[in-house]
Amino acid sequence: MESKLGLVIGRYQPFHFGHLQVIQEILTDPECSELVIAIGSAQESHTLENPFTAGERILMIDRVLKNLGINNYFLIPIPDLNRYAVWVAHVESLVPAIDVVYTNNSLTKRLFSERGYKVKSPKLYDRKKYSGTKIRQMIINNEPWQELVPAEVGEIISKINGIERLKELVKP
Amino acid sequence: MESKLGLVIGRYQPFHFGHLQVIQEILTDPECSELVIAIGSAQESHTLENPFTAGERILMIDRVLKNLGINNYFLIPIPDLNRYAVWVAHVESLVPAIDVVYTNNSLTKRLFSERGYKVKSPKLYDRKKYSGTKIRQMIINNEPWQELVPAEVGEIISKINGIERLKELVKP
Amino acid sequence: MESKLGLVIGRYQPFHFGHLQVIQEILTDPECSELVIAIGSAQESHTLENPFTAGERILMIDRVLKNLGINNYFLIPIPDLNRYAVWVAHVESLVPAIDVVYTNNSLTKRLFSERGYKVKSPKLYDRKKYSGTKIRQMIINNEPWQELVPAEVGEIISKINGIERLKELVKP
Amino acid sequence: MESKLGLVIGRYQPFHFGHLQVIQEILTDPECSELVIAIGSAQESHTLENPFTAGERILMIDRVLKNLGINNYFLIPIPDLNRYAVWVAHVESLVPAIDVVYTNNSLTKRLFSERGYKVKSPKLYDRKKYSGTKIRQMIINNEPWQELVPAEVGEIISKINGIERLKELVKP
Amino acid sequence: MESKLGLVIGRYQPFHFGHLQVIQEILTDPECSELVIAIGSAQESHTLENPFTAGERILMIDRVLKNLGINNYFLIPIPDLNRYAVWVAHVESLVPAIDVVYTNNSLTKRLFSERGYKVKSPKLYDRKKYSGTKIRQMIINNEPWQELVPAEVGEIISKINGIERLKELVKP
Amino acid sequence: MESKLGLVIGRYQPFHFGHLQVIQEILTDPECSELVIAIGSAQESHTLENPFTAGERILMIDRVLKNLGINNYFLIPIPDLNRYAVWVAHVESLVPAIDVVYTNNSLTKRLFSERGYKVKSPKLYDRKKYSGTKIRQMIINNEPWQELVPAEVGEIISKINGIERLKELVKP
Repeated sequence: MESKLGLVIGRYQPFHFGHLQVIQEILTDPECSELVIAIGSAQESHTLENPFTAGERILMIDRVLKNLGINNYFLIPIPDLNRYAVWVAHVESLVPAIDVVYTNNSLTKRLFSERGYKVKSPKLYDRKKYSGTKIRQMIINNEPWQELVPAEVGEIISKINGIERLKELVKP
Repeated sequence: MESKLGLVIGRYQPFHFGHLQVIQEILTDPECSELVIAIGSAQESHTLENPFTAGERILMIDRVLKNLGINNYFLIPIPDLNRYAVWVAHVESLVPAIDVVYTNNSLTKRLFSERGYKVKSPKLYDRKKYSGTKIRQMIINNEPWQELVPAEVGEIISKINGIERLKELVKP
Repeated sequence: MESKLGLVIGRYQPFHFGHLQVIQEILTDPECSELVIAIGSAQESHTLENPFTAGERILMIDRVLKNLGINNYFLIPIPDLNRYAVWVAHVESLVPAIDVVYTNNSLTKRLFSERGYKVKSPKLYDRKKYSGTKIRQMIINNEPWQELVPAEVGEIISKINGIERLKELVKP
Repeated sequence: MESKLGLVIGRYQPFHFGHLQVIQEILTDPECSELVIAIGSAQESHTLENPFTAGERILMIDRVLKNLGINNYFLIPIPDLNRYAVWVAHVESLVPAIDVVYTNNSLTKRLFSERGYKVKSPKLYDRKKYSGTKIRQMIINNEPWQELVPAEVGEIISKINGIERLKELVKP
Repeated sequence: MESKLGLVIGRYQPFHFGHLQVIQEILTDPECSELVIAIGSAQESHTLENPFTAGERILMIDRVLKNLGINNYFLIPIPDLNRYAVWVAHVESLVPAIDVVYTNNSLTKRLFSERGYKVKSPKLYDRKKYSGTKIRQMIINNEPWQELVPAEVGEIISKINGIERLKELVKP
Repeated sequence: MESKLGLVIGRYQPFHFGHLQVIQEILTDPECSELVIAIGSAQESHTLENPFTAGERILMIDRVLKNLGINNYFLIPIPDLNRYAVWVAHVESLVPAIDVVYTNNSLTKRLFSERGYKVKSPKLYDRKKYSGTKIRQMIINNEPWQELVPAEVGEIISKINGIERLKELVKP
């Protein structure tokens, strides 16, 4: 049977339970037998908005999914292009040929639709609770952020001194 | 037990049995429990030297390794930077933290050594027999190139009309 | 008689009657027998600030001017450079040699003056009434924006689904 | 009646009678009521291969076509991207929406075909006689190159000191 | 005796007595026998935030230091990279090998520390009094900014019409 | 008395007695009281053509000139732009305002002349004897290259393991 590839794009700064829920839901879709997880803003790191490198984010997601017994995914960093008219072609060149795009972002939806892709909207997770922005702020404030991310993510952030890194980024 | 990550870099245009032999040998090294396979010149495609996109090359390698029961690898596209002084930092930002680099290329060896990495030379495969340049030329000449690459690679090249693509690239 | 080339630069997101008024006024200047209309931020599209591609903007302006019987112009896309010290040289390389620059923007005025160009200030149009920002917002709000742009512009925006594109860009 | 836009791409270093012949032939095609003439390698100038700026090349072509009474064209500079997988999207963003592509270059043919465009091959002109490379060499050698280009092109090259510029580029 | 090189980075828009104080203090450090003064955001000019070119800033600093009899420094422009993961390698490639970094900026401190550099914090000058942002605003407002910068800086700003340049940048 | 700045551009891979002779000759010109020494191809390193980083080349030249008692120079790295139409503006933005350009390269001569600069040709040194290409080859071949460069250059190349670096770059 032919494999059907889905695509989902995020920045994953850091990867949290909301992201995981979306990926797990997509993988139940019969139209998606394998998932390309694209790491957006791959060139960014060491900023308040994007503290972790693409490589660090890839490792976080891989560890979580592998430990859940999930193996049918690709983890591919996508540097920003900031030219939306060519952005889909840019993504296409970096990932295996995809059959369906999963997104709730209206720009991503529009750009892939204009190129003829089938776009599906995964069920929204609780965005108030699970939010990269909020988690980064909680890390800085010493609030209990660990419960919002899979254990592997917390461990990797500790190992790479990610807490200290984030705190230094907000120093005056 | 802690995972030990190795790094190997190639252009894989296309992925052939020589590449596979190197990867299989590296994976027997006790110092490497997982392997980052970096796809070099990731921005290139549709040229005689680099006919296949990064996404197509990722698919080729993934299919071959998965079918061999190999799962402990990352496949990560690396765009060229053409600034060798910052190239190692560029690679580092896109891949999980690595412990050892496998290469026979003297520039790669030098650049990673200057940054303090342990560099090992994998056993050389038969470069006269297995060579991307030669395989691309054989495809153009209708010579029996399929026996030089794993079956999955030949199937993907057919499916994406890769033979026709290469032939058109050499037309006057 | 020698042709005298003028230069005017705008983003034209979209082209409106204020822009048209400026172009028509410039073309009455005896010092300008032909006008280079440079499309700034040419690399941008699909954003709230710059929804239309350079090609779409070129088509809008061409249709309006041709229908008015105006033929003495060049329509040339200029990608942003974000290095003002070399920006004039960048523009110079993409357009035919110009004799006079028309602008009310003080940075553009300064940069071309520093390079020795004659700079003239075209009469200001009613910027409260005719404003790209305002027109884009009116499109999103279903307000009567069509009367602020030439008919050809409204038709092209409809044809390329520009209204829908803009509305999607402001979705949460 | 709806306009049908064709696309033709060249470097036009300089514009010669072979280029003109192709454009005139395309304009007789009932499928092309207007022609987008894309100026390739627009960022290049002052080299032996690309001596003239995009703006200078635009002026050459405009003067020739206007004097022949041809008005149904767009002249649009296209900077190189050197990423063929996104090159068609790059061109699309800079030009009005096109219906058919005219080219004898097999890479251009392939890239636009892969994106679903109709591609036609214009009749070949005498490439031994009309060749940019040859004309540039003739200029350097003081050979009678003027008869290979329209009169307007020769005049513009003289006016911008193009002969002197080319000769200096080959000095040791 | 071996020379010990220090590195200090700033934008110097313009160079003021606070900057001078830091440089003079660093030069008293026995660990720093020569100082690399890196001019950050070197590609920027003609904006409110970065009005002066790298070359103009280099001249300002050189004139001040030479007149004070200071000669043991390098003045090197560093264009922004906006990829912090490779930024240290980028700086390293443009400057002679350095032994110690002087900075109070926490991101700079972090990035160089992660690469194994010794980082020292120079004593802070009075940032309320000496501030590029404030001086630029004072120039625009015709306030007595000259007393905040060395005389040579004021003379160079006058000579390059820097006052007029800044005032035009804030015009509507 | 007003200072008069000259500009000289080279790659200095490595800096040799031919380069030094040119600089010393220029500094006898009454029209040049200070010299901007621009380090071309500043982004390059670790290649056969450009083995040394900009920072390493800056150090070489600085040590030689300082030891000769020469202090009236600026050493400024210039990254390549590969857009000759804007190259002079690019250089201008990175160096203090210059009065005269010294070059025997006909492209450099042309580009600065087209921008209105006074260009002078320094007396040619013995290019057969003193040549970066030849010196790099001699280093690789263990031939007596040290006598072609000032002693400081030889010492720096040794210290940074430059001989080993070059030799590795030519390994198969």
